[in-house]
Amino acid sequence: MLPYFPAMLAFKPLGIDTWQEHVIYLHPDCPVCGAEGFSAQARVQVRIGARTLIATLNLVGSPLLHTHQASLSASAAGELGAREGDAVEVTHAPALESMRAVRAKIHGLVIDDAQLAGIVTDIAGERYTEMQIAAFLAACAGGRMNEQEVIGLTRAMIGTGEQLRWDREVVADKHCVGGLPGNRTTPIIVAIVAAAGLTIPKTSSRAITSPAGTADTMETLTRVTLDVHELRRVVERTGAALAWGGALNLSPSDDVMIRVERALDIDSDAQLIASILSKKAAAGATHVLIDVPVGPTAKVRSEADLLRLESLMQRVAAAFGLHVMMVHTDGAQPVGRGIGPALEAHDVLAVLRREAHAPADLRHRALLLSGLLLEFCGAAKTGEGQTKAEQILDTGVAWARFQSVCEAQGGLTVPGEALFRRDVLAPNGGTVTTVDNRRLARTAKLAGAPRHPVAGIAMRARLGDSVSEGDPLFTIHAQASGELDYAFAYALANPAFGVRCN
Amino acid sequence: MLPYFPAMLAFKPLGIDTWQEHVIYLHPDCPVCGAEGFSAQARVQVRIGARTLIATLNLVGSPLLHTHQASLSASAAGELGAREGDAVEVTHAPALESMRAVRAKIHGLVIDDAQLAGIVTDIAGERYTEMQIAAFLAACAGGRMNEQEVIGLTRAMIGTGEQLRWDREVVADKHCVGGLPGNRTTPIIVAIVAAAGLTIPKTSSRAITSPAGTADTMETLTRVTLDVHELRRVVERTGAALAWGGALNLSPSDDVMIRVERALDIDSDAQLIASILSKKAAAGATHVLIDVPVGPTAKVRSEADLLRLESLMQRVAAAFGLHVMMVHTDGAQPVGRGIGPALEAHDVLAVLRREAHAPADLRHRALLLSGLLLEFCGAAKTGEGQTKAEQILDTGVAWARFQSVCEAQGGLTVPGEALFRRDVLAPNGGTVTTVDNRRLARTAKLAGAPRHPVAGIAMRARLGDSVSEGDPLFTIHAQASGELDYAFAYALANPAFGVRCN
Repeated sequence: MLPYFPAMLAFKPLGIDTWQEHVIYLHPDCPVCGAEGFSAQARVQVRIGARTLIATLNLVGSPLLHTHQASLSASAAGELGAREGDAVEVTHAPALESMRAVRAKIHGLVIDDAQLAGIVTDIAGERYTEMQIAAFLAACAGGRMNEQEVIGLTRAMIGTGEQLRWDREVVADKHCVGGLPGNRTTPIIVAIVAAAGLTIPKTSSRAITSPAGTADTMETLTRVTLDVHELRRVVERTGAALAWGGALNLSPSDDVMIRVERALDIDSDAQLIASILSKKAAAGATHVLIDVPVGPTAKVRSEADLLRLESLMQRVAAAFGLHVMMVHTDGAQPVGRGIGPALEAHDVLAVLRREAHAPADLRHRALLLSGLLLEFCGAAKTGEGQTKAEQILDTGVAWARFQSVCEAQGGLTVPGEALFRRDVLAPNGGTVTTVDNRRLARTAKLAGAPRHPVAGIAMRARLGDSVSEGDPLFTIHAQASGELDYAFAYALANPAFGVRCN
Repeated sequence: MLPYFPAMLAFKPLGIDTWQEHVIYLHPDCPVCGAEGFSAQARVQVRIGARTLIATLNLVGSPLLHTHQASLSASAAGELGAREGDAVEVTHAPALESMRAVRAKIHGLVIDDAQLAGIVTDIAGERYTEMQIAAFLAACAGGRMNEQEVIGLTRAMIGTGEQLRWDREVVADKHCVGGLPGNRTTPIIVAIVAAAGLTIPKTSSRAITSPAGTADTMETLTRVTLDVHELRRVVERTGAALAWGGALNLSPSDDVMIRVERALDIDSDAQLIASILSKKAAAGATHVLIDVPVGPTAKVRSEADLLRLESLMQRVAAAFGLHVMMVHTDGAQPVGRGIGPALEAHDVLAVLRREAHAPADLRHRALLLSGLLLEFCGAAKTGEGQTKAEQILDTGVAWARFQSVCEAQGGLTVPGEALFRRDVLAPNGGTVTTVDNRRLARTAKLAGAPRHPVAGIAMRARLGDSVSEGDPLFTIHAQASGELDYAFAYALANPAFGVRCN
């Protein structure tokens, strides 16, 4: 093959923001397009200096770009450190061999560790389009991965990122499978468990399909974007942390896949297990308590679903030497009052500060799970965990520890409240007999959560409550009037509460 | 709900070509982004006058756009008929309720006709992102649709577009399942069958995952973008047509799905059957012959696969009153010499003109299939079809009819040849024992087919041939030197020929 000198183009910033999608803009008559036969939407490799990435090609005519100029989307320019006039090299993207394995999976075949590692490495390297990731996720969902495949996927995900090691025999962690709006027990549990002397370097994700993840909620209270060194310092000082996992490069392919899962609003057992366990193994945990809310509109809808999930989770965890305890909790209705990052943070603060109006259900769940985790990690005798957790919370020790953790992460702040609010009213009087978590979550998301931290829902009624016609069932909070209207219209058309006439 | 007046923005053309993906560009501080809470990559509804579409939002700062301006990608501007200064209204995209059914399918549930109709209507209306379409396709592939679902999908696909009716008892059609490069029998069969007095208004697709579709090949010979009226006139005059189906709005959702299938390089039984039968039913066919090449590297790889496909195809066809005959042909190696639109057109012309160097295998297959189709439609007695077809071809009647059809469509032209060529040589002497269709197709695509009509491969050796070291096995044709290099590098790394030393 003849030596091959790609044409060089000069970078011109146009400032187009495509979020995380990398796009390169070229003139249709630029020499590279001609020589390489590129057309719009082609996937190309872009190099500036020593950095490369794969981008989608869009074509832009004069006067925005001349034939020897190239522009990049904001994310791509940032990742390549592009500055005006930099030499940009554009070549064909290397053939994505790992897509063969995705196609095999789509066609129902079992794929092996090497194939999974190839896919996950390319996903973590941002070489897949969202379309390709979506195809991979859909092909693996619905019980279409066997145990070996889930183990292989988990191993591949751990291998693409950082792996933390703590010089402790027991490192506690907890996770909630989600699907239950407002179930924000983690900050409370971390405070209690750390106060009991255990190490719990908690890393959390942002929301996937929910109106808020723990990282979103904690971000309204303190800084959560910590690097590995900052995380170590916080944990050494307080025994705990409440950080955003995304900043630590733990299982980075998970974050890319989560982006697509969020857009599609899907998740699956296999992906869920690989996502949780790869993050926990990479974070150096030894003992993980997993809260699984079960209810007709929660993520896990039946005992049978739970048993299937638990059995697969335990077998995969065992392959990585992780001790996992799964706890089935009630998933019939939201926990606490707030749904959305800031509204949930207010609930967390009320419980930690033992305020009179603190939501009793959130307090109760946090104590229950803290007690089980203390016992699971050997920090309390069997049957005594919950009492110990209660003492730690009620003496103010947990609140003090929570403040220390936030101080170590950069300081505690109290979040604000939304500009626009509107009540959704009971259409008739009677007893609340059903609550649809999914519709509430959907409404909170349409109202802007978690993008706008103060957006979401404040619950005003619970299962079993008696309400009169016109009583508020919940209040929508939004930061933009258009979003308030949109969420309200959805809530009217899709009632989340069933109220039976007495 | 309060009456709601969305802010109006003025259209400013920026001329950004994103191929078929609709993108709207707004200033981050534009009033709509603030009021509606839009951020980059949001899906929004765009209206100009009476036309609307759904687009993805990209944000662009000054000086390209001011806060009260909006720009659109070339495809979106075209579809909305946007002119500079036009008032652009941007609102939240309506919630895509049909994605619930996609999620159900991803999770392994059976979905019903109404759910499938919802999905297909939204896909045809370009309301799905490519990511969402990819998830739907992957969820349905690998045998995950039952018979009722394939029927429902087919019915929904027919229902979203035009449906042609011909005032004839028998309307012939043929289709090739594909996967066999160079297998371009259709133009020859249409000429023979029409010359025998049958009606065959053939509409063809462009390539999905192959280096050329029949429409791509025919487009190098004549105009194939006909509207319904033009198609009728051509068929009335000649009894036949060789048109591109995409221009006729037959089963339009199929074209959208094919775009994503092409990018992912996947297809599935369910999608294949729904794609073929929806197009044939919408085109008004009554008798369809389907050529299914079977071979280790063809699309259908075994007799078992074929039987499964045939059984499902027959049952779905019966639901629409279509008569289908499936013919199993040899799929061990490419047919003819050319792979790629123009190179295949040259083979077709050579057979029709009865030239001495015409590829014998292409001629033989075209006669076999023409004979079977004549018998299937009652235009020849059982066992006599092939002889009749041979007479029509060898007397020049088929060539005359082919010219008439092309003349009626706008005139016959002969395609050119590629600028850049390079031979791929036998690494050793011996006998050709294997040919990998997939690698040849991949090489032809990397060389630029079907985007560049003259790009592709010219075969120089066949199964069973004796070759010496350094003999050419095939020649890569390309329109750009970068593509020639790229295809050549792939061909060297992925040998398509197995040559056993004698």
